[in-house]
Amino acid sequence: MMFQRKLFYVLALVVDRLHIAVAGDPDILTDYVVPSNIVNLTSDLFTFTGMRVIINAPPPPAFKVLKASMAEFPGLNGQSVSYAVLQYPTGSVNPPHTHPRASELLFLLMGTLEVGFVDTTNKLYTQTLKQADMFVFPKGLVHYQYNADPKNPALALSAFGSASAGTVSIPNQVFNTSIDDTILAKSFNTDIATIQKIKLGLRC
Amino acid sequence: MMFQRKLFYVLALVVDRLHIAVAGDPDILTDYVVPSNIVNLTSDLFTFTGMRVIINAPPPPAFKVLKASMAEFPGLNGQSVSYAVLQYPTGSVNPPHTHPRASELLFLLMGTLEVGFVDTTNKLYTQTLKQADMFVFPKGLVHYQYNADPKNPALALSAFGSASAGTVSIPNQVFNTSIDDTILAKSFNTDIATIQKIKLGLRC
Amino acid sequence: MMFQRKLFYVLALVVDRLHIAVAGDPDILTDYVVPSNIVNLTSDLFTFTGMRVIINAPPPPAFKVLKASMAEFPGLNGQSVSYAVLQYPTGSVNPPHTHPRASELLFLLMGTLEVGFVDTTNKLYTQTLKQADMFVFPKGLVHYQYNADPKNPALALSAFGSASAGTVSIPNQVFNTSIDDTILAKSFNTDIATIQKIKLGLRC
Amino acid sequence: MMFQRKLFYVLALVVDRLHIAVAGDPDILTDYVVPSNIVNLTSDLFTFTGMRVIINAPPPPAFKVLKASMAEFPGLNGQSVSYAVLQYPTGSVNPPHTHPRASELLFLLMGTLEVGFVDTTNKLYTQTLKQADMFVFPKGLVHYQYNADPKNPALALSAFGSASAGTVSIPNQVFNTSIDDTILAKSFNTDIATIQKIKLGLRC
Amino acid sequence: MMFQRKLFYVLALVVDRLHIAVAGDPDILTDYVVPSNIVNLTSDLFTFTGMRVIINAPPPPAFKVLKASMAEFPGLNGQSVSYAVLQYPTGSVNPPHTHPRASELLFLLMGTLEVGFVDTTNKLYTQTLKQADMFVFPKGLVHYQYNADPKNPALALSAFGSASAGTVSIPNQVFNTSIDDTILAKSFNTDIATIQKIKLGLRC
Amino acid sequence: MMFQRKLFYVLALVVDRLHIAVAGDPDILTDYVVPSNIVNLTSDLFTFTGMRVIINAPPPPAFKVLKASMAEFPGLNGQSVSYAVLQYPTGSVNPPHTHPRASELLFLLMGTLEVGFVDTTNKLYTQTLKQADMFVFPKGLVHYQYNADPKNPALALSAFGSASAGTVSIPNQVFNTSIDDTILAKSFNTDIATIQKIKLGLRC
Repeated sequence: MMFQRKLFYVLALVVDRLHIAVAGDPDILTDYVVPSNIVNLTSDLFTFTGMRVIINAPPPPAFKVLKASMAEFPGLNGQSVSYAVLQYPTGSVNPPHTHPRASELLFLLMGTLEVGFVDTTNKLYTQTLKQADMFVFPKGLVHYQYNADPKNPALALSAFGSASAGTVSIPNQVFNTSIDDTILAKSFNTDIATIQKIKLGLRC
Repeated sequence: MMFQRKLFYVLALVVDRLHIAVAGDPDILTDYVVPSNIVNLTSDLFTFTGMRVIINAPPPPAFKVLKASMAEFPGLNGQSVSYAVLQYPTGSVNPPHTHPRASELLFLLMGTLEVGFVDTTNKLYTQTLKQADMFVFPKGLVHYQYNADPKNPALALSAFGSASAGTVSIPNQVFNTSIDDTILAKSFNTDIATIQKIKLGLRC
Repeated sequence: MMFQRKLFYVLALVVDRLHIAVAGDPDILTDYVVPSNIVNLTSDLFTFTGMRVIINAPPPPAFKVLKASMAEFPGLNGQSVSYAVLQYPTGSVNPPHTHPRASELLFLLMGTLEVGFVDTTNKLYTQTLKQADMFVFPKGLVHYQYNADPKNPALALSAFGSASAGTVSIPNQVFNTSIDDTILAKSFNTDIATIQKIKLGLRC
Repeated sequence: MMFQRKLFYVLALVVDRLHIAVAGDPDILTDYVVPSNIVNLTSDLFTFTGMRVIINAPPPPAFKVLKASMAEFPGLNGQSVSYAVLQYPTGSVNPPHTHPRASELLFLLMGTLEVGFVDTTNKLYTQTLKQADMFVFPKGLVHYQYNADPKNPALALSAFGSASAGTVSIPNQVFNTSIDDTILAKSFNTDIATIQKIKLGLRC
Repeated sequence: MMFQRKLFYVLALVVDRLHIAVAGDPDILTDYVVPSNIVNLTSDLFTFTGMRVIINAPPPPAFKVLKASMAEFPGLNGQSVSYAVLQYPTGSVNPPHTHPRASELLFLLMGTLEVGFVDTTNKLYTQTLKQADMFVFPKGLVHYQYNADPKNPALALSAFGSASAGTVSIPNQVFNTSIDDTILAKSFNTDIATIQKIKLGLRC
Repeated sequence: MMFQRKLFYVLALVVDRLHIAVAGDPDILTDYVVPSNIVNLTSDLFTFTGMRVIINAPPPPAFKVLKASMAEFPGLNGQSVSYAVLQYPTGSVNPPHTHPRASELLFLLMGTLEVGFVDTTNKLYTQTLKQADMFVFPKGLVHYQYNADPKNPALALSAFGSASAGTVSIPNQVFNTSIDDTILAKSFNTDIATIQKIKLGLRC
């Protein structure tokens, strides 16, 4: 029946919109938050198996992130914590970026890693991590990782103090959206040709 | 012994003040936070006159920010709010940046302004503001402002929902620190010469 | 069709109630919050033009507030910041009031202003502000402003560290609701006639 | 009409689920939160009369708790505070438990009470309370109360800094769910017979 | 003297560093907060016996509050909860006031009580409480209590969702500080004589 | 000089106590928090190498936890995130416990693991995890892990949404402190001999 289907879509929309609106990383008033589409609550809500794909897999051709945040793992809603698995083939880089809603605590499972972040006074802090080392990137600050090793891939697990940390990739968000070339050229005190060259490179 | 007693009082005072002083941007347990170096509390703690310099002053030669955050205005400690005055001569830009600890609510006092921000899904939102218009830049996201008017300067007042919002300037923090050229070239998918050209331009 | 209309109202009610329930000034888990009635998200959500009316307008006959809080500017939801424009004709007063959910940071755009607040130990802090001066009224405390200048109007912009600071006007909330005269007379240690005189004055 | 009824249930379910999801003890953006099923808002939302039953009632046969949390008293939603009335007949105990979402501030209305809590360094703090004494049990820590008096019952009122503090009863949650006997025996470094004996006792 | 100067620098450093580290009523990172003057930590930190004075005491001549907040009971620091005992002789009133940092949950131990609060839309909510009834006054809103019973005193216990709720007494903070008579007269739309009459009454 | 040394100890004590008092998991007003004993800030503050000991180490004889919380890794102060490495020899158990200040997100690096938690309604949720699986234990709830595999050890990394989650071990905190046998016997509805047997077992 047409009308029932329409109703379903309207309801789905309402619920969906509200989901955008309701979640908050601060303390919840319940043990956990059950998504509205779950009828039969089981321990599956609290389990995430999406990372099994990395076991015995060959290193990816380029730097790759696998996320387990609230979007992929709804049971994290209200729990203020999430993970990402970071895979670095030799010579690859995780470009400068920020997380608007959480600090990142990286644990290096395999390989070595050059890491760095810049604080709001423009001071750069760098470190070379070995296997089992941890490094914390404070909330909202620009940071990067680089696997300088020419032979061995690196593998890291990062924890975030939010179920939805968000990522602002500097190359993508600055040079891979339609921000006007004139504005970017003025911002980086360079010519428009240089801006266009960078934009082109990022589109490849 | 006189000196020991004096020391005791100084220490007691320090500890006492610190008890007053322990609260942060989250709710405080006192009406306000008195800095430890203030002996005689008056309404001056709650007053800031540092913006008087902009009255009838000619527009600055380049984009300029005057801040009234906790660092310049200690009475804001624990009050979760601060200001910045933004001066845009014709054709000037406030380069892409983020504020790690607050959203920004801009009020355009004079002139016109092109503004924009990019969300974490890489979508760009732009607007042309006229006098008395407001625009909100959500917490932690990349944003910029540009005075495209060839004749008239622009003047804005921005409010932040934190006493210490912090600023991460993309050009400065990515290209004006000593992050390795190789890492930047890989990050922006370009050659080292282009990176060095941008770095040089920003040092001028 | 009757039923569809009824359904629409029920849904609207549900959404509306939930809107009351869902919003929280603390950190959100998304970049921003999209109101449920917005189908096509544009930068208009982040823009507010309602203050254009003050440009070149004559001073109002009495003290007047124009708000840009979450109610008037839905894009502020989750951003923990809002504005109010305050217009003071000569000799006018913004009566003693409190904001239950935020501190207020006033910026004096034009004129002079007598301001004051009382802390919870009953101490009064006053200041005379000049153009471009700022003053912070700590969260939840009684404060007022008065334009003592007999010739010139004053104009101020106030920022709040919440998208919905709320206002508790002392004259209105104490003397302009139906709180029993006996209770008020006992509270202010005065006679019922005095209470009734004040109540009458406020109704004019 | 079947369909309308079904619609109503779907809506009720949606609202109910959202209620699970929406509430947050942190600051709200409104004065209070009105439950979606309330059509006519009166002061009854802010009133709770469920404790009248304890007046002049004989002491219960065993330790008994009467709660006034958000579940029983919906007006508490968003207000970060709740109560429980605790009744202790002679010789009764409130077994070791924790509150995951709030500290507890106990006020002893009648009788005497042995109280104690263990901090995360395993240190036990005990006290014997007399009438009108208060004791605070810090958030999330194991604590208990015991009325050692062989003749007189005790009565206490406990306040919590959350509208929904939650209770984790150690005997019930460890020994009265179906956690495997082997796991419990290993955990308590004892034999399975002892575990089964305790489990059996708690089921009586 | 060299040593004193060195001491000063060390202290300044300590204070300065601590300013960096500020925390408040929100979650603490320890089980509890030990005041700096406590050398030997015992369960006394978590115990408050200051309310014993009310046992079998005659009703006070006027309305009286006994507080157990962080100031009187330092163990509450970081626990987000506190108490006040409220004593109402016949016909007495707790004048209109607000608590800037917490909601209040009143439990009526004895007698009857007229209570009321005004929300930010100026709507008054009133209730007549009987013994064992509870009423919640939302955070930051104007409220009062009145014992209308001509024969019996009333006794209440109020819990707050903060260790330091603070109190803003309207009569005292508006009419019993040195706020200018002109400002008050304009604010309450009355004459200066009426303001002075009220001020005089409150000083008695 | 005696006096200087004494002074030093007093200052050290003050700073130490204040460290207990000042830190808060909520948002900080700076990029990071520098401990007061650090004179020369380097990237070492943000690095933790204490987990290198687990590389190629044989499984421990019993279940073992290695923590990287604020106590071991001071750079985590204010960053709301921390880690623990969990080593499970065959047949070992991590006994029922709670974390008062954070949820736990476990990532199974090696082996298999039986996990479970009990919510505040006394419902048990269990799961069998395989390598690379994640499981979230909500804040403040009782949970455990058990390596049922008779041949292979298991290894897990757990992330917490607080720099100082804290641990309440049920066996230790309930049966390995000096809580009175009578209270425990009544709490678990068993005899004193059984309580003493469990206490004795845990002391081995």
